[in-house]
Amino acid sequence: MQVGVIGSGFCDEETYELAYKVGQLLAEKGCVVINGGLGGVMEASAKGAKSKGGLTVGILPRSVKDANPYIDIKIATDMGHARNVIIVHSSDALISIGGEYGTISEIAIALKVGKRLASLKPPVVIKGMVVFDKAEDAVNYAVSGSL
Amino acid sequence: MQVGVIGSGFCDEETYELAYKVGQLLAEKGCVVINGGLGGVMEASAKGAKSKGGLTVGILPRSVKDANPYIDIKIATDMGHARNVIIVHSSDALISIGGEYGTISEIAIALKVGKRLASLKPPVVIKGMVVFDKAEDAVNYAVSGSL
Amino acid sequence: MQVGVIGSGFCDEETYELAYKVGQLLAEKGCVVINGGLGGVMEASAKGAKSKGGLTVGILPRSVKDANPYIDIKIATDMGHARNVIIVHSSDALISIGGEYGTISEIAIALKVGKRLASLKPPVVIKGMVVFDKAEDAVNYAVSGSL
Amino acid sequence: MQVGVIGSGFCDEETYELAYKVGQLLAEKGCVVINGGLGGVMEASAKGAKSKGGLTVGILPRSVKDANPYIDIKIATDMGHARNVIIVHSSDALISIGGEYGTISEIAIALKVGKRLASLKPPVVIKGMVVFDKAEDAVNYAVSGSL
Repeated sequence: MQVGVIGSGFCDEETYELAYKVGQLLAEKGCVVINGGLGGVMEASAKGAKSKGGLTVGILPRSVKDANPYIDIKIATDMGHARNVIIVHSSDALISIGGEYGTISEIAIALKVGKRLASLKPPVVIKGMVVFDKAEDAVNYAVSGSL
Repeated sequence: MQVGVIGSGFCDEETYELAYKVGQLLAEKGCVVINGGLGGVMEASAKGAKSKGGLTVGILPRSVKDANPYIDIKIATDMGHARNVIIVHSSDALISIGGEYGTISEIAIALKVGKRLASLKPPVVIKGMVVFDKAEDAVNYAVSGSL
Repeated sequence: MQVGVIGSGFCDEETYELAYKVGQLLAEKGCVVINGGLGGVMEASAKGAKSKGGLTVGILPRSVKDANPYIDIKIATDMGHARNVIIVHSSDALISIGGEYGTISEIAIALKVGKRLASLKPPVVIKGMVVFDKAEDAVNYAVSGSL
Repeated sequence: MQVGVIGSGFCDEETYELAYKVGQLLAEKGCVVINGGLGGVMEASAKGAKSKGGLTVGILPRSVKDANPYIDIKIATDMGHARNVIIVHSSDALISIGGEYGTISEIAIALKVGKRLASLKPPVVIKGMVVFDKAEDAVNYAVSGSL
């Protein structure tokens, strides 16, 4: 199962730790972690996944050179923000963690195409979002669909 | 000046009329109207612009065949929702009218890249949005930047 | 009718004049000229079209700021070479003029999706290409399909 | 090292076996095989890689559902032929095997952006191509750069 983790390229320590935990839990469940390959939530979730022996995929806005050190498979789109849509299409389910405008665009596309989406600390509440407080609950919902 | 008009492919009559008015006002000010080329708000704004002799551009998710009858220049991306990002990049300023998930993704990208954006009847309020009630005020802000 | 003109961003004077002539002829026939919006063949064909009062569309690899001065409608994709595919999809027929690797990629995609393509001074001959020596003949074939 | 393998979605038995061999050799050298995720050369190279315990990535034109059974990581672009460019950008080096128009477009983009490219049985010879007869030689060149 390929699970997308979306969030900002810069984030506070608490959000970083939450994303790290999400990455760990996904790897423990055998999921491939897909994200945008850059810093912040993307780095933290990949780092967490690698700490548990998981596999990570970064779908980068520009070049493979931009990937954080915890990305195994580097997809270089050279498409800027349009790569957000590829992250959504490539994920069986998604978890958003915090986030700003870029993350909102990914949340909106995920809801638009009907992907299962768990949102931790969302920057705005949009109709249809399923919001969680704890990494465990968000991962559980993303992976199994059960609340 | 190229002004993007974003909104849903299906909309109620009130929203359709608002979008039609926006298209008329933009054409009267000599702006090219850019939108997604499909129905609803996209059709209404193009129809309004054509009623005043304006020029319209549709950036379509798939094929030129999908364009509504009021589109002059048909850009076929075959890229689905990723075309939303192209609409934003191609617009000097944008006006959102109502909208659902797809529009939210465009609003978020517009805010992310720092485009001037006027929002009429937004589906959700996101930090940094400038919200308007009347077509005239939204068009005025989009075109001139003055509130 | 929207006709794509494809070729290199840098070209010799002879090729520039050929592209200018193609742009003139297309405008005289009432066609919208679509190209990649940059220099060389793209600039020449747009300049030729404008000299005859035509309408020009540039589908740019990055930003609207990169457009040559003869482009009326600026589509900013921020997608680099992937914008080549959008040029093909958006054209009812295409004319290639000289060209290098980028043009070959566009020629190949045009042949792949079955667009009518007239090739002037092609850099390589690919199965299915229809090759011409004169601007008039290439434009005639692109617009009418008759050899 | 991520090596792209490009070729047609339908191919004869000889080409299939050549692509299978290329996939095996790349996996034996520890390379990740990246391709377009569909049939023909894409299926054969992924199948070969899996037979040697390799990891495979498919960058699909539409949906994850279209992937052949030998693809581990499925990237769904929903971008049709524009995904060809992503395959090139994501590959440290590429090997083309036979191919038709789609492959020519990928070859041209690879040469354009300066990626190392080994071509087996190319459909057309383009300036700058390095052509090989045997899978071993093509893989060796792609991986090491030595002829």
